[in-house]
Amino acid sequence: MKHALSVTRQQNFAAWYQELIAEAELAEESGVRGCMVIKPWGYGIWERIQTLMDARIKAAGVQNCYFPLFIPLSFFEKEAAHVEGFAKEMAVVTHHRLIGDGKGKLNPDPESKLEEPLVVRPTSETVIGAAMSRWVQSWRDLPLLVNQWANVVRWEMRTRMFLRTSEFLWQEGHTAHVDRDDAMAETMRALEMYRDFAEDELAMPVIAGEKPEHERFPGAVATYSIEAMMQDGKALQAGTSHYLGTGFAESSGIRYQDKDSGIQFAHTTSWGVSTRLIGGVIMTHGDDDGLRCPPRIAPHQIVIVPMLRDDDGDAAVLDYGRALTSELRVLTAFGEPLRVHFDTRAVKAQAKRWGWVKKGAPIIVEIGPRDVAEGKAAVIVRNRLYKDDGKLATSFMPRDDFVSTAVETLEAIQSGLYAEAKARLDANIARDVTDLATHFAASEDKFAGWVEVQWSRPSGVALDKITEQLKALKLTMRNAPLGAAPADGRCCFTGEPAVERILVGRTY
Amino acid sequence: MKHALSVTRQQNFAAWYQELIAEAELAEESGVRGCMVIKPWGYGIWERIQTLMDARIKAAGVQNCYFPLFIPLSFFEKEAAHVEGFAKEMAVVTHHRLIGDGKGKLNPDPESKLEEPLVVRPTSETVIGAAMSRWVQSWRDLPLLVNQWANVVRWEMRTRMFLRTSEFLWQEGHTAHVDRDDAMAETMRALEMYRDFAEDELAMPVIAGEKPEHERFPGAVATYSIEAMMQDGKALQAGTSHYLGTGFAESSGIRYQDKDSGIQFAHTTSWGVSTRLIGGVIMTHGDDDGLRCPPRIAPHQIVIVPMLRDDDGDAAVLDYGRALTSELRVLTAFGEPLRVHFDTRAVKAQAKRWGWVKKGAPIIVEIGPRDVAEGKAAVIVRNRLYKDDGKLATSFMPRDDFVSTAVETLEAIQSGLYAEAKARLDANIARDVTDLATHFAASEDKFAGWVEVQWSRPSGVALDKITEQLKALKLTMRNAPLGAAPADGRCCFTGEPAVERILVGRTY
Repeated sequence: MKHALSVTRQQNFAAWYQELIAEAELAEESGVRGCMVIKPWGYGIWERIQTLMDARIKAAGVQNCYFPLFIPLSFFEKEAAHVEGFAKEMAVVTHHRLIGDGKGKLNPDPESKLEEPLVVRPTSETVIGAAMSRWVQSWRDLPLLVNQWANVVRWEMRTRMFLRTSEFLWQEGHTAHVDRDDAMAETMRALEMYRDFAEDELAMPVIAGEKPEHERFPGAVATYSIEAMMQDGKALQAGTSHYLGTGFAESSGIRYQDKDSGIQFAHTTSWGVSTRLIGGVIMTHGDDDGLRCPPRIAPHQIVIVPMLRDDDGDAAVLDYGRALTSELRVLTAFGEPLRVHFDTRAVKAQAKRWGWVKKGAPIIVEIGPRDVAEGKAAVIVRNRLYKDDGKLATSFMPRDDFVSTAVETLEAIQSGLYAEAKARLDANIARDVTDLATHFAASEDKFAGWVEVQWSRPSGVALDKITEQLKALKLTMRNAPLGAAPADGRCCFTGEPAVERILVGRTY
Repeated sequence: MKHALSVTRQQNFAAWYQELIAEAELAEESGVRGCMVIKPWGYGIWERIQTLMDARIKAAGVQNCYFPLFIPLSFFEKEAAHVEGFAKEMAVVTHHRLIGDGKGKLNPDPESKLEEPLVVRPTSETVIGAAMSRWVQSWRDLPLLVNQWANVVRWEMRTRMFLRTSEFLWQEGHTAHVDRDDAMAETMRALEMYRDFAEDELAMPVIAGEKPEHERFPGAVATYSIEAMMQDGKALQAGTSHYLGTGFAESSGIRYQDKDSGIQFAHTTSWGVSTRLIGGVIMTHGDDDGLRCPPRIAPHQIVIVPMLRDDDGDAAVLDYGRALTSELRVLTAFGEPLRVHFDTRAVKAQAKRWGWVKKGAPIIVEIGPRDVAEGKAAVIVRNRLYKDDGKLATSFMPRDDFVSTAVETLEAIQSGLYAEAKARLDANIARDVTDLATHFAASEDKFAGWVEVQWSRPSGVALDKITEQLKALKLTMRNAPLGAAPADGRCCFTGEPAVERILVGRTY
């Protein structure tokens, strides 16, 4: 069977991913190293993610703010002093003026050299910590719950669109609390918000759990993640939530007067998700014809394509399409008005159809003169694009039947995408593997899924040894699932009594 | 009469502005040169501006995208080659890694020096032009209408919160068209969108018109602006729209095949508004008690403050407040659900009241045990805070009367703020001034308003001479109003026959 993309997932998953992004017009290389241009359809998905996540963040009482893009070097020196794993790949601003050389070239003006270089934020703990130290005086000021939507930069050597780019867009929540209990409750609230968001809005099943010690955010006391399984069996860390203890409060000076009039350091948290989620959606729901966009985050849920012939009949088709669009727009799906697009561009209907298939519009409706005459619509549901015989599964429906079932069709698409991905996740976590090398060797570079093993949670050198062993197999520990069964056996690495279960797999 | 701010507008407008921003908790200095922290109430106003402007932008068929923060130096060299007034105060990234010196200090790692420095975008014409050159091939691809919401950086020596900061937030629309007419229509559409937005949403009357030649955006064929009059009589340029001709298309290579199969350069436009609008709202509507936030952009339109006494009566007050909040939230004002906040913080009611007065919540409602018993509410309308005798103008209203009139009260506040500002603008544009020096000298550093003069629109050296004369009087030309009467006299500068009328005034 011929598909809309030239490479299938089976043939070459990485090449399929790149082709899908290009053909669905989600993003493209910008010509600026490691930075992408996010195109309207990709950005539209990000806007949907922002809207839905922002509502959840606000509902939790968190307030949005905006903090500076630039962070003075000295802020990082404080952090570097107490954080060993401090990452140093950051964009550094050293000058504030360009000067011409008289021959058409521009250079940083040496006269404009900054006394203290500025770092383009890779994350904002330090600069937000400095603000919190001004804002927090008494226990009455706590909890302090802030969030920002921003761009951040981490200099990456190997980049991949949406998954790892030097500049990316994200939200970062930062909170300060009176004690460990309150901060841990917030850490887990954010984690649960992400889990529910991924499953409910993105139809992307995930496993929420705690990262092992060596995968913690530098300076964190505990890091939690949601991990999603991509269609090649690799894990994608799709969101993180950190309990930071009092370490950041100590380096930033976030102190408060408690009820008994002692001075205490606040306990802080941070949590974030990014444009990486779009990569997760692609690799969870994409097929060999392009993206299948979950209706809750689809910029357009229904696209209506008029079949125009440049003749007198066009006016009736356009009228019919406009009326259908209006009628659908007053309907409600998932608690919001239906997002319906009437695509009247000067492009052939066939090209439009395949364009929307590749973009993953959940429902594509084609209308031509015959449909107008018969009061019908030709409906393509992106989730079941082909019939068993390999032909396009277009349903010719009475227009009113289509309108009256459109909402339930969208709901079915959303739950269908989730069910499909959930079945794949559930089927591909092995729990009976005793020898990781053998298990994963058999699937060298092919689909292998994850393995849940029991382990004794060693630290220091013993942990390093295990991670080295795993690295040789191209494996990493993902997280210790929150809902896993209690350990009841031996550690698969050390042979000691196990204390918890942890997921192991290949990863992005 | 004592006011909530310690400095009045009359005493020191600049100090009043700074105090208002601090007391209304809109923003604060970040400790990073020229960059501010936008606090929840200030950012909430920006979110409202974004939501309302974004709807207008999308309704015009413009699609949001995201382009890189970093722009290679070479992109600016192209621009510098054809743009004389090219501004060079920009943040330049030269390194991509920090390295420790072993003594706790970090420095840019010399090994990580970039081959080509990157500029932090001051605006995105060049990088969006490069994308458009890839996206546009045929006349069918035009018009191409994109917008981005982003942070930009222009290194500023003297900064002032919201009005001029090194980093600011904005939207930048960029469009490409087949010809001059279509591009000019888009330029004027954006200008009219800004005019209507300022007046309708911000209640800030403006004058839309064309900037004189020397105030054009570098490289533009024509620049239009909206200009608002602040309460000190100075002008604030609150939004701009540029017709760029084919200059940017030529330097970026935006070409298309036209219907007659020739290759043409596209005509481009750009237009933007920024967080500067918040400065305009403050200086248009603020009074000596703080901000008066127009209801359409107020993050909370109604704030309910419970008077709690830490006794058994509190539960009934909280219940009463919650019920009132819910009842108000199902109402609709300006086409959206009412934004109602129930402020239950552990802070004294008096402090809360004055906090919300300074923030400019349009309606503040206080409820105590007596109100619960009598079914009443104590209502403060921010626009008429005091009675004639100088006492606080609190209305004790039956609760149901308050609920049933709340929407019309908000509408009256919005239109009242506009009417007040419009009357001030209209009253302070002088049209009969023949000697600018005498007129403005009389008001040295005091309220002077604007003067509309007739002029012959000279260019080159003759124009330079006029701008120097104006500069000596601390004056600038603002714009030539679109709706002004035709010229019918002599140029106030050259004595030649006038061709248009132009506004002159002091400016931010």
